[in-house]
Amino acid sequence: MLSTSQLDIYRNKGYVVVPGLLSQAETARVRAEAEYLFGRDHPGRVMENDGLTVRGIHGCHQVSPLLARLARLSRVLSAAEQVLGSRVYVHQSKVNAKRALRGDLWPWHQDYIFWEREDGMPEPRVTNVAFFLDDVTPHNGPLLLLPGSQHLGVVAPQRREAAERGWEAHLSADLAYALDAARLAPLAEKFGIEAATGEAGSALMFDPRLIHGSGTNMSPVDRTLLLLTYNSIHNVPRGGRRPTFLAERDATPLRPVEAL
Amino acid sequence: MLSTSQLDIYRNKGYVVVPGLLSQAETARVRAEAEYLFGRDHPGRVMENDGLTVRGIHGCHQVSPLLARLARLSRVLSAAEQVLGSRVYVHQSKVNAKRALRGDLWPWHQDYIFWEREDGMPEPRVTNVAFFLDDVTPHNGPLLLLPGSQHLGVVAPQRREAAERGWEAHLSADLAYALDAARLAPLAEKFGIEAATGEAGSALMFDPRLIHGSGTNMSPVDRTLLLLTYNSIHNVPRGGRRPTFLAERDATPLRPVEAL
Repeated sequence: MLSTSQLDIYRNKGYVVVPGLLSQAETARVRAEAEYLFGRDHPGRVMENDGLTVRGIHGCHQVSPLLARLARLSRVLSAAEQVLGSRVYVHQSKVNAKRALRGDLWPWHQDYIFWEREDGMPEPRVTNVAFFLDDVTPHNGPLLLLPGSQHLGVVAPQRREAAERGWEAHLSADLAYALDAARLAPLAEKFGIEAATGEAGSALMFDPRLIHGSGTNMSPVDRTLLLLTYNSIHNVPRGGRRPTFLAERDATPLRPVEAL
Repeated sequence: MLSTSQLDIYRNKGYVVVPGLLSQAETARVRAEAEYLFGRDHPGRVMENDGLTVRGIHGCHQVSPLLARLARLSRVLSAAEQVLGSRVYVHQSKVNAKRALRGDLWPWHQDYIFWEREDGMPEPRVTNVAFFLDDVTPHNGPLLLLPGSQHLGVVAPQRREAAERGWEAHLSADLAYALDAARLAPLAEKFGIEAATGEAGSALMFDPRLIHGSGTNMSPVDRTLLLLTYNSIHNVPRGGRRPTFLAERDATPLRPVEAL
């Protein structure tokens, strides 16, 4: 469970970093599983623009029993239930690789707009838990966040034509619903830019309306993040057509497990 | 002139940031000149991979009287002479645009290897002065440096074939003499990574053997740097064939001017 102070931070800034949510041993197991998935061909595996480097794996809770258990791990699940005020399931999961010296950027965006417009998710009663599987430093492409920007709700991006593109445009560095400089400038001025850094095993919980992005990884250290998107069982999307590895169809509430 | 303490920092870390080297009015004039040059077609103008955004202007001291005077500005020139222990001239000059949300990365590299291998420069008796024409923050692609790495001398990069490519490969994000992850990892571990940030008008002086790079500009603020490379008049290259906007042929020692 989050402490009252952590929950306050989450509500005010739209995110909170929880140190040591996973033990070192748990982190190592999850990291090894991610590495295994990077090496397997799978429809949810996406490559960087270089065509050689793995960018991410989507739907990993659907293909990995270990990661399915991670999603149900009591201390994680209860934090998601606490934030959303109901039982939950995983709408989306992914591992973002952000490889040393090769991992490309994610432009500034809000996650929720994808789920609202592409999947038909009724409301932003949904939260992200991003596990740091490597140490995240200022120089290996940490998530950058505009603290408090979740209070704006959905900021309509200017690239409307994006909605007509395929789902691949939701996963690449040339992101469909990105915010351009004209839209971002006054918001970055107002809210400031913060970087979410921390040791491996920490987790970042963040509101899916929070405006965020990340730069290139300029360090020789990978920056592997595992993201679980928990959705309230009262907020099940209707009418989405994206592949299941981007939009879970099974909204059965998760039952906790005590260990990985 | 640099203070003794600034000179010590330069010798030890390979770089020093000098705040307020230019006044706000001088910075604004130089910034406007850079903006003018971005808009003009010129053999030394290089575009980002998007083909639309200016990445940089090379040889700007050769085409702009204002920037030629900047290179001779007494307080700048005397610092370069102090570091190199002789009279100097400008071997190379450039404006790196690093535009808001569009400016691409510079991979990790050392400058000197280009001048040694491409231009036939005898020894690293040469220094860079990088003027901050915008505020440089952690998020708009500051120069990242491995402090102390200049003491290694030239670290041979692994991409030897780069030498056979044209000079365009010295200017793009796919840099000819870049250090790969295997080479960089132990060096970043040993020296650490520091970011050179500061207000507009500050200047970064750095040793051309210092390993450095910079990430993408994730902020809505441009990060314009004007770089002047001062070479000792006792270190004139022989036998280079690159265009003059990359390698000055006129080694006449610069005479100081007191004002822009």
